[in-house]
Amino acid sequence: MKAARLFTYDKPLKLVDVETPRLKNPADVIVRVTGAGVCHTDLHIVEGVWKEKVQVSLPYTLGHENAGIVEEVGSAVTSFKKGEKVILHPVITDGLCRACRIGEDMHCENLVFPGITADGGFAQFIRTSDRSLVRLNELEPADVAPLADAGLTAIRAVKKAASRTTSGSNVVVLGVGGLGHIALQLLRCMTNASITAADVVESKLRLAEKMGAHRVIDARRDPVKQVMEITKNQGAEVVIDLVGNDQTLANGVKMLRKGGSLIIVGYGGTANLKAIDMIFSEFSVLGSLVGNWDELHELIELTRQGKVRVITRKGKLDEVNDMLDQLKKGTLEGRGVVIP
Amino acid sequence: MKAARLFTYDKPLKLVDVETPRLKNPADVIVRVTGAGVCHTDLHIVEGVWKEKVQVSLPYTLGHENAGIVEEVGSAVTSFKKGEKVILHPVITDGLCRACRIGEDMHCENLVFPGITADGGFAQFIRTSDRSLVRLNELEPADVAPLADAGLTAIRAVKKAASRTTSGSNVVVLGVGGLGHIALQLLRCMTNASITAADVVESKLRLAEKMGAHRVIDARRDPVKQVMEITKNQGAEVVIDLVGNDQTLANGVKMLRKGGSLIIVGYGGTANLKAIDMIFSEFSVLGSLVGNWDELHELIELTRQGKVRVITRKGKLDEVNDMLDQLKKGTLEGRGVVIP
Amino acid sequence: MKAARLFTYDKPLKLVDVETPRLKNPADVIVRVTGAGVCHTDLHIVEGVWKEKVQVSLPYTLGHENAGIVEEVGSAVTSFKKGEKVILHPVITDGLCRACRIGEDMHCENLVFPGITADGGFAQFIRTSDRSLVRLNELEPADVAPLADAGLTAIRAVKKAASRTTSGSNVVVLGVGGLGHIALQLLRCMTNASITAADVVESKLRLAEKMGAHRVIDARRDPVKQVMEITKNQGAEVVIDLVGNDQTLANGVKMLRKGGSLIIVGYGGTANLKAIDMIFSEFSVLGSLVGNWDELHELIELTRQGKVRVITRKGKLDEVNDMLDQLKKGTLEGRGVVIP
Amino acid sequence: MKAARLFTYDKPLKLVDVETPRLKNPADVIVRVTGAGVCHTDLHIVEGVWKEKVQVSLPYTLGHENAGIVEEVGSAVTSFKKGEKVILHPVITDGLCRACRIGEDMHCENLVFPGITADGGFAQFIRTSDRSLVRLNELEPADVAPLADAGLTAIRAVKKAASRTTSGSNVVVLGVGGLGHIALQLLRCMTNASITAADVVESKLRLAEKMGAHRVIDARRDPVKQVMEITKNQGAEVVIDLVGNDQTLANGVKMLRKGGSLIIVGYGGTANLKAIDMIFSEFSVLGSLVGNWDELHELIELTRQGKVRVITRKGKLDEVNDMLDQLKKGTLEGRGVVIP
Repeated sequence: MKAARLFTYDKPLKLVDVETPRLKNPADVIVRVTGAGVCHTDLHIVEGVWKEKVQVSLPYTLGHENAGIVEEVGSAVTSFKKGEKVILHPVITDGLCRACRIGEDMHCENLVFPGITADGGFAQFIRTSDRSLVRLNELEPADVAPLADAGLTAIRAVKKAASRTTSGSNVVVLGVGGLGHIALQLLRCMTNASITAADVVESKLRLAEKMGAHRVIDARRDPVKQVMEITKNQGAEVVIDLVGNDQTLANGVKMLRKGGSLIIVGYGGTANLKAIDMIFSEFSVLGSLVGNWDELHELIELTRQGKVRVITRKGKLDEVNDMLDQLKKGTLEGRGVVIP
Repeated sequence: MKAARLFTYDKPLKLVDVETPRLKNPADVIVRVTGAGVCHTDLHIVEGVWKEKVQVSLPYTLGHENAGIVEEVGSAVTSFKKGEKVILHPVITDGLCRACRIGEDMHCENLVFPGITADGGFAQFIRTSDRSLVRLNELEPADVAPLADAGLTAIRAVKKAASRTTSGSNVVVLGVGGLGHIALQLLRCMTNASITAADVVESKLRLAEKMGAHRVIDARRDPVKQVMEITKNQGAEVVIDLVGNDQTLANGVKMLRKGGSLIIVGYGGTANLKAIDMIFSEFSVLGSLVGNWDELHELIELTRQGKVRVITRKGKLDEVNDMLDQLKKGTLEGRGVVIP
Repeated sequence: MKAARLFTYDKPLKLVDVETPRLKNPADVIVRVTGAGVCHTDLHIVEGVWKEKVQVSLPYTLGHENAGIVEEVGSAVTSFKKGEKVILHPVITDGLCRACRIGEDMHCENLVFPGITADGGFAQFIRTSDRSLVRLNELEPADVAPLADAGLTAIRAVKKAASRTTSGSNVVVLGVGGLGHIALQLLRCMTNASITAADVVESKLRLAEKMGAHRVIDARRDPVKQVMEITKNQGAEVVIDLVGNDQTLANGVKMLRKGGSLIIVGYGGTANLKAIDMIFSEFSVLGSLVGNWDELHELIELTRQGKVRVITRKGKLDEVNDMLDQLKKGTLEGRGVVIP
Repeated sequence: MKAARLFTYDKPLKLVDVETPRLKNPADVIVRVTGAGVCHTDLHIVEGVWKEKVQVSLPYTLGHENAGIVEEVGSAVTSFKKGEKVILHPVITDGLCRACRIGEDMHCENLVFPGITADGGFAQFIRTSDRSLVRLNELEPADVAPLADAGLTAIRAVKKAASRTTSGSNVVVLGVGGLGHIALQLLRCMTNASITAADVVESKLRLAEKMGAHRVIDARRDPVKQVMEITKNQGAEVVIDLVGNDQTLANGVKMLRKGGSLIIVGYGGTANLKAIDMIFSEFSVLGSLVGNWDELHELIELTRQGKVRVITRKGKLDEVNDMLDQLKKGTLEGRGVVIP
């Protein structure tokens, strides 16, 4: 089959022929990929950012935002059958460790992350397991593939925000891209907070308004001051940083209200936190990592209810390098989805 | 009356005669101080660390860990009467803002903090309000005064730890001083975690063992490596940093397990957190600020049950500068308590 | 001033002249009542249902759903001033007991309940305390008075429901009257559940549809079976029983899914629960009692956001007996509000 | 192999030869039973109490409290191997339904309950799955087998109690038998509540004292009044009813404090709850059903820490009918455990 693979860091992916994945374990499922989202993390992988974090040898197939149609199921699989439309929770988990038992899939002790630590979905077929599937029913895989990672990461962050706010609280979202436009929709249906979105690109601010932001601020013009004005000098209960560079992290903390929480989702930068500030205002700084199966299940339900819609730009598998380029330049409108 | 007051930053307190505080508002209570703890924060105040954080003009009376006997009550006070033994929640709150309504006293919008932003308890009398009192009954004010801040700060941090652990989880306490020796006792009765204490002083490690630590580690010898060995390379679910310098903060994060939390209580240093680390392992870094009235109430109950005991070294009011010196040098054994 | 008072159980209220309430305690506030809701509990009081539950001697003034304008404030009151529009949390609390400290106002150890255990708001003026007020700003007291009890009771029940459901869960509301029409709006903005409303009156079912129910069922035709069909034989995660007679309580339990919760709000009947059923399906049966100050505060915020609207039928104070009659007969459309 | 099987309701079990269970599914595990607890539920099954609740045809093997040694593992099992000592979570679950995903094993949509709905552990071997096992390491199966159901049911109820209490709250345990003596030990290490145990048998009250009750009350002498005296007329925050007959259920509700919770574990009787009482005091009545895998895991950890010890009376498989008789008469001291 065709697959888009990383052979060398800092080089484009190569479209090559590889062997089609086969069932190995009784709970395995082979899925025909009919939608695979293109993500900032793909850029970071190509740049070698993840090299130290995870063990993987080149070449391998990227693509960790996958949806498609069940092609073949292992001998122990009874809950899915060939032909069903599914979205793939991004990781393969053992289901037996304590983390899995309490629903914290991302902390599984035997986690495999296709597209990051194993062959992913920029290919015609992918191998996953029955534990990783969520049924799509009437939803189209290519329309919702970005929910598998961008959406899932957004809902986990928004759920952390929701549990730390009450009706009328202020939530600020830094960055209105693939994650941000979903996060805004989720904040609207999962909280009754007052939502402010910040970005440095005018068109993103217009998008934010359409997606549910009550207010938008141009982050090029002292965003901290603007948040303080909006919140009558109290600061926001929650800031969700989807950018994660040095500046957004520094600003994020300064925007917080006493007892407030900065939720870090984007990465690349470093947060420098004085202990006295952290305790004086009792701030929390929370990393947020993708999301659990149940969160993906909930997200698909909200999509079915019409409360979440992903803006996609679809292309063929061989357009993946173009999409990565545009993503880097910030010119890609909507989430890129390749249809292998 | 006599009071120990700060006239100049970086100078010893002066023992002077000042006017005895009088009732101002209907809910006011005047307490005769019979125990006032001496705290690292007093050192930090003298050093000017708090200058930028809070508005206060010199001279004023320090002492924010107070207990004593009700001397006089305002016209609206019906729940306390002269002669009752009480401990003082460290802040005076309005009881009407949303923070107070949901029990988050430390975030009160109209907070007054005697000993930090107003005259405190290094004096024969102090003014507080009925909302700030917890009845001591058979407990002696001078024995428990340090619970008002050191103990209260410890219980809040331990409750944050407790809600993030399960039986058998690993909790590490960095620093076994005034707060640490109470935190260890609380971890024993409020969790079923495996408790490791770290310090750089041998006698503190012996104290930690007596106070409930299952294991102690000498922090002068690669404490991160030692924690990793103890936790079989998983890391600890929670690290409570009672020191808060650059090094303990850096080590604290490195000791964490996936999904783990660093609770910052001590201050002085800065934590440098790479966003990629925060999200990859989904860490939380939580400031913790003193504690609520209900937490003080609970702490007094646990003390009554015999589960918490404060080690004190009592002295007269004019010994306060000596105690501060010894605290600075790390030679004060037990929490200093002056009896004005 | 004029007041509608209960002189004899099972008799209409009498409109009489009584002394205007005066400030007694420093935190007291006198409010000019410009809206007082008429509630099923008023009917129950007249019928003597509450006689055994609370200590009160006749005659006294009913009316526990009050809003109006601040007329006079006590010497200790600094947060409200004459002329401000306010809604009254239905009870007067001490603010000092543990229940108050953790925000559970309804469990205050020194609770006074005007309109039930003391003179209420079917009068030109009422005495309350600063702790009981929520500012209305641009909202009109007569439009929102029913939020003080009907709305507050609804939001507390809905919050209990919200914490026991996830997106796509099934919630059933039994009874679409004063509380029900608010509960449905709240379920829409505080959950992403699938909402079913049941009633025995056709017009109430039409109202339910307008207020946000996804489905309505005629409770005269085997409502348990209908819920089972809607939930594909799983049952509902939560049933909120706003009626509380023997039959709705019995049906409510039968509608539950494994692990489901019946939230009892209406009263009059008795639930007979076999222990084996309770454990086999791990059901919870939860009484729900009015709500806290913070819940009223949140409800006013949601009203300000346009997410909650009370349907009222306004009248003069001397129409109160008519309204009670119509309420009894089930012919009162919207919540009755008298404007004294 | 030998097995003790139920052929006819209301008759003793028969010890017969049956075929040894064999692996059927890839995740199956065959365990050699070296300890199987004898439980009140076994009595209830023999009496036909469960006939309507579950689908099972006679004859079949009872025994749902099992521990032993792994004998054989299915092709997909990698986490356990022959010879390991294990305790069996009482149910076999699919691991794929939403209940399993969020850790609520007992609500699994495809639950199998060996000893209740399938062949159980009163036999030399039992078939279970890898998802149901918890490693015992140095603990002896026969010593801890009752933790699989009696202990697990106790810890789940105690965890519900713990989350509804604070230090110094009152918890009452009704019934000090197989579950009760474990529940008391758990209340001691999982809460800082004041614990009262009630029973009608003098020796059980002595046992309760040894197991951690702060106070015991003879339930033959107006237990409600005694609880009210102990709690200074406030009532208890939580009552755990391990008996579940009409009288204990009625008493349980009367012992509650405002906002209190009755946790039902024992069964047989019916609770009659007036709606007005439920709402006036905002009571909760919670069924509690066995427990999750993670709760069993936690219980084994607490046993390893020496905080929980089961009192057992061991016997051979052919003593099972004797033990059931003694259990019925209330003369069995300690939990009966057969060693097949």
